[in-house]
Amino acid sequence: MPEYHAPLRDMRFVLHEVFAADKLWARLPALAETVDTETADAILEEAAKVTGELLAPLNRSGDEEGAHWNDGVVSTPAGFREAYATYIEGGWVGLAGNPAYGGLGMPKMLAVQFEEMLYSANASFTLYSALTSGCCLALDAHASEELKQLYLPRLYSGEWAGTMCLTEAHAGSDLGLLRTRAEPRADGSYAISGGKIFITGGEQDLTANILHLVLARLPDAPAGSKGISLFLVPKFLVAPNGELGARNALSCGSLEHKMGIKASATCVMNFDGATGYLIGEPHKGLAAMFTMMNYERLSIGIQGIGCAEASYQNARAYARERLQGRAPGGARAPQKSADPIVAHPDVRRMLLTMKALTEGGRAFSTYVAQQLDLAKYSEDDERRHAEALVALLTPIAKAFFTDTGLESCIHGQQVFGGHGYIREWGQEQLVRDVRIAQIYEGTNGIQALDLLGRKVVANGGDALHAFTGEIRAFLDAPAASRPFADRLLAAVENLESVSAWLLEQAEQDPALVNAVAVDYLNLFGYVAYAYMWARMAAVAQASRDNDEAFYGAKLATAQFYFTKLLPRIHSLDAVIRAGSAPLLELADDRF
Amino acid sequence: MPEYHAPLRDMRFVLHEVFAADKLWARLPALAETVDTETADAILEEAAKVTGELLAPLNRSGDEEGAHWNDGVVSTPAGFREAYATYIEGGWVGLAGNPAYGGLGMPKMLAVQFEEMLYSANASFTLYSALTSGCCLALDAHASEELKQLYLPRLYSGEWAGTMCLTEAHAGSDLGLLRTRAEPRADGSYAISGGKIFITGGEQDLTANILHLVLARLPDAPAGSKGISLFLVPKFLVAPNGELGARNALSCGSLEHKMGIKASATCVMNFDGATGYLIGEPHKGLAAMFTMMNYERLSIGIQGIGCAEASYQNARAYARERLQGRAPGGARAPQKSADPIVAHPDVRRMLLTMKALTEGGRAFSTYVAQQLDLAKYSEDDERRHAEALVALLTPIAKAFFTDTGLESCIHGQQVFGGHGYIREWGQEQLVRDVRIAQIYEGTNGIQALDLLGRKVVANGGDALHAFTGEIRAFLDAPAASRPFADRLLAAVENLESVSAWLLEQAEQDPALVNAVAVDYLNLFGYVAYAYMWARMAAVAQASRDNDEAFYGAKLATAQFYFTKLLPRIHSLDAVIRAGSAPLLELADDRF
Repeated sequence: MPEYHAPLRDMRFVLHEVFAADKLWARLPALAETVDTETADAILEEAAKVTGELLAPLNRSGDEEGAHWNDGVVSTPAGFREAYATYIEGGWVGLAGNPAYGGLGMPKMLAVQFEEMLYSANASFTLYSALTSGCCLALDAHASEELKQLYLPRLYSGEWAGTMCLTEAHAGSDLGLLRTRAEPRADGSYAISGGKIFITGGEQDLTANILHLVLARLPDAPAGSKGISLFLVPKFLVAPNGELGARNALSCGSLEHKMGIKASATCVMNFDGATGYLIGEPHKGLAAMFTMMNYERLSIGIQGIGCAEASYQNARAYARERLQGRAPGGARAPQKSADPIVAHPDVRRMLLTMKALTEGGRAFSTYVAQQLDLAKYSEDDERRHAEALVALLTPIAKAFFTDTGLESCIHGQQVFGGHGYIREWGQEQLVRDVRIAQIYEGTNGIQALDLLGRKVVANGGDALHAFTGEIRAFLDAPAASRPFADRLLAAVENLESVSAWLLEQAEQDPALVNAVAVDYLNLFGYVAYAYMWARMAAVAQASRDNDEAFYGAKLATAQFYFTKLLPRIHSLDAVIRAGSAPLLELADDRF
Repeated sequence: MPEYHAPLRDMRFVLHEVFAADKLWARLPALAETVDTETADAILEEAAKVTGELLAPLNRSGDEEGAHWNDGVVSTPAGFREAYATYIEGGWVGLAGNPAYGGLGMPKMLAVQFEEMLYSANASFTLYSALTSGCCLALDAHASEELKQLYLPRLYSGEWAGTMCLTEAHAGSDLGLLRTRAEPRADGSYAISGGKIFITGGEQDLTANILHLVLARLPDAPAGSKGISLFLVPKFLVAPNGELGARNALSCGSLEHKMGIKASATCVMNFDGATGYLIGEPHKGLAAMFTMMNYERLSIGIQGIGCAEASYQNARAYARERLQGRAPGGARAPQKSADPIVAHPDVRRMLLTMKALTEGGRAFSTYVAQQLDLAKYSEDDERRHAEALVALLTPIAKAFFTDTGLESCIHGQQVFGGHGYIREWGQEQLVRDVRIAQIYEGTNGIQALDLLGRKVVANGGDALHAFTGEIRAFLDAPAASRPFADRLLAAVENLESVSAWLLEQAEQDPALVNAVAVDYLNLFGYVAYAYMWARMAAVAQASRDNDEAFYGAKLATAQFYFTKLLPRIHSLDAVIRAGSAPLLELADDRF
C-alpha cells in the first residue's frame, strides 16, 4: 500500500526561507503572539503524523468501500468515524479559525501546508472538514453575533460540520437559475424548500450536527443572481444553550455514484420547509457565499497539489526500485539484471515535471496564503494591494493547481506502466480523486472567465500590473543573485504583452474573453510559477554551500522548469492571439 | 444512458472522398474482386447497427458489473455471452482475415472504421476479439501450414479466441528479462512453464477454446531479447480434426482490479508444463510477435479515437440541451431561462478540440491503414514505400491517438460539469477506459523511443523524408486548391528542421533520443494531423457547393485545427531543442 510522508523540509524551505514567514508574523500584531518559527514547525511535525499515520492508511480502503446510504442515513467507510474523533481532538478543524470563538488563529501560510498534507493523505476524508472551515469563514464574516456564539465554537472543534448547498439540478455554473425558496416565518426564521445536488458531506455519521449554508430565494426576490439569499439550516435545531433539539425538515435523498472521492458522501439534499436563519442581508447571499467560495477555491486548488505530491512520492519510489532496460550511454546498475527506471531520461522527464509543478504550486499556494494573511491582518495600502492580489490569483490557484495536478497524477500513473492501472497500487485512485477538483467549486472554465473577465479586463489590468510590478521589482536586484532572470523577464513581458493585446481587443470583440480565458489562465499560471521558481532558485543559490544536496536539487528543478515547462507559453500565446473567430464559425447544429 | 451512433457520413468522407479508396481497391488485384464502394458502405451500415444496437447498450452495465473470477473460471458480465454469439454470427472477427483460411479479406482501410465503432461502443467487449485478430495475423505470417489449417478458420469465425502472453511481473517494457521456459518434448511439442500477467481475455466464457501466444525461452536460449521464442498454447488441446481434447496445463490465477475496462478480463496466467507449439524459428519469437504487436498497436491507437468519438457525441448532445448562462454578446435563446451551453465560446473550444482531434485521428488511421493495404497488396517500390511509412507512423498512431484520446475524453467530461463526474452519465467511464490505451501494447514512452530511435535516427531520417516528401508533393499543387497550405508548409519545415537538429545532436549525445522522444512524437503527430486536415480541407473546399452544411463544417474545423491546436508545436519545438541536459542534472537520490 502506498505510504505518505509529508515533505516537511520542502514546506519549511518555502515558508521560512523563500517567504520569510517569521518576519511577516513578527510585524503583524495579531500573529506576533500566536505563531513563530518554532510553533509553526511543531505544528507541521504533528500534522505530518496525523496525515501520514492516521488518515493516509484509510485512503485506499475508503475508496474501495465508499460511503453508504440507507434510507436517508449515510455512513462513512470503516475507520472514518474513529479517525475523525481522533482528528478533531487535535483541534485541527479550527487551525486558522477566529480565536474569539475558539479557533487557533494560525496564519493561512501555515494552514495551506496542512491542507496540502490532508489532500495528499486522504482527499475524501479531508472534504468533510474542509467544508466546515469554509462555512466558519462565511459565518464569521456575515452571521449575527448570536449565531456566531452558538455555532462557531462547535464548528471549530469539529463537533459539528458545515456544508455549502448551492447547486440544483438545473443550476450549476449559472446560480441565477436556482429555485429553492425561503418563506419568512413570524419568529424571524425562514422555511426553506427545494432540492440541492452535489452536496459534499450533506449527510454523514461523523458529527452530531450538520449546518447547511443554503442559497435560496425570498418571495420578493428579483430574478437572477441578484435575488439570492443565504441561510443557515441545521440538521438538528439548536437550543440557545447549544443543546440539540428536533430534527429539521431536511433529508438526504441519495448519494451520487462517482468516478472518485468515493469515501466522500456527495448528497442529494431535500429541504421540505426546513427552518433556516438568514445570514447577511436579503438578496446578497451570493456575495456572502463567495467569502466561503474563495476560501474553498484555494483549498480545492490545493487538492491538486496534494494529490500530485502523493502520486509523485509513489512514482519516485517505484522508479528507484523497478528494473527495466538500460540507461542510454551505459548500464547504471551493471550488477543487476537491468537499471532502475529512474535512469531513463523519459522517466526522469515525467518525475521532474511532477516535481517542478508540485513544488511550484506549493510555493504559489504559500504566496497566495501570504496575501490572504496580509489582506486579513495588515493595514491600508498593504492590505489593499494584498486584497487585489488575492482576487486576481485565487482563480489561477484553483484552476492551475488542479489542471497541473491532473497532469502530474497522470504522469505518476504512467511511471508505473501497467501497474499504474491496477487499483492496489493507488496511482489510479489519485487520478480519479484529483479529477473532481477541476470541476467543483466552479469549473476551471468558470475560474478562467473570472480571471480574465473580472480580474483583468474589468479593471483595465490594474490588478495584473500590481502582480507583474512585483515581479519586475524582484528582477531589479543584481542579476548575479537572480538566476533565470532573463527567462523570467521574457515570460513577464509575454504576459504583459498578451494582456495588453487582450485589453485592447476585448473592447471590440464581446466573445474574446470567453474564447481565450482558459488559455490565458494557463499562460498566467506558467508565468506565476516562473516567478516562484526564480525566487526559490535565488534562495537556493545563496544557500547552496550549506547543503548542496538540497539546494542543488532545487536549482536543477528550476532549470528543468525554465527550459522544459515554461516554453509552453509560446503555444498559449499563439492560441490566444488567434482570437475568438475560429471558435464561432461552426453553426451550433453542425457540431 | 448514453447512445452511440457511428459517424457514417464522416467515415465515408474520409474513405471515399479524401483517400479515394475505390480507386486503390480497383487497381489492386487482391482487393478488386473483394470490395467496392457499395460493399464497403453496406458493411459500414451493418457495423453501425451491430455496434450501436448490440454492443453499446452493454457498455455501462459491463463497467458496473465487471468480469468475475471464481476458482479459475472467469465469467463476463451479463449479456456479453449472448452478444458475442450474435456478434460472431456476423463474421466480424474475420473481417480483414486471410480468405484462404476463412477470413473475409476486407482491406484495412475499411476495417479501421469498424474498429473505431467497436471501441466507441464498448471497449471492454472489443478487446476480446481484437486480440483474436492480432493472433490470426501472427499465425498467418509465421505458423506452419498445419497449424494454420487447424486454427485460423476457428479464430476467424470467433468460435475460438486468441491472446498474447508477453508480460511477466518483472518484465514489462523490457521483455528481455522474461523467464517463462519452454522444454522440448520428444513429439516435437514443448512444455511451457511460467507466469504471465496482464493477459487480456486469458480466460473467459465467450469461446469454446482460447489460443495463447506465449513468449518463452528454450533451454539453449541466449540471454536477453534475442533468446525469446513464440509458442501457441491452447487452453484445450486440439485433435487434428479440430475436436477439443484434454484441458492443457494452464490456468487463470486471478483477475486484476483495474481503473477501467472492467468488463475485460485481465488475467494472471499460470503455465505448468502446458503443451505448446513453436511458431516461427527458435529465438526469433519477438520478431514474430511484433507482427501481432504492430497490428495491435494501431488497433489500440484506434481505441483512443473511438472513446473520444463516443465522449464527443455525448458532450455535443449535452451542450445543446443544458441551459446555463448567456452567450457573450447577447442571448441566443431569449425565450428560455438561459442559453444552451454550446453558445459559450469556452464550451465550443472544448467541443472543437475533441472534434478536430478525433476527425484528424480518423483520417490518419485511415491513411496508415491505406499504407498497410499497400504494404500487403502492392508491389516493388510502392510496397517498400508503404512498408517504410507503416513502420514510421505506427508508433505515432498508437501514442498520439491515445494521448489526444485522453485529452478529448477529459474535455468531454468537463463539458458536463459536475454531471461528468457521476457514473450514470458515462463520461467518466470513457476517461477510465481510454486511459489504459496509453499504457498497454507498449507504453506511449516506448512508442516514442521506437519512433525517434529506430524509425528516424537509426535510418538517418530516410523514412521521415518519405513522409515529408509526400506532404511537399501535396503542397506543390496550386495554392488556391490547397487551403491552409502556408500553415502546413511551416509545420513541415518545423518538423524537418527539428529532425535535422536531432539527427546531428544525437551523434554526440546518447541520452538525447530518450530525453526528447515523447515531445518529438507529439510534434510529429500535430504535423501529421495538419497534413490530414489540409487534405480534408482541400476536398471540402472543392465540394462545398454540393453540401455547404457538411463541407463548411469541415472547413471550420480545419480552421480551428490550424489556428488553435497546431500552434502547440511551438512549445514542443522549444522543449526538444532544450535537449537532454535539464533531465540529467538531478541525482537519482535527490528526486
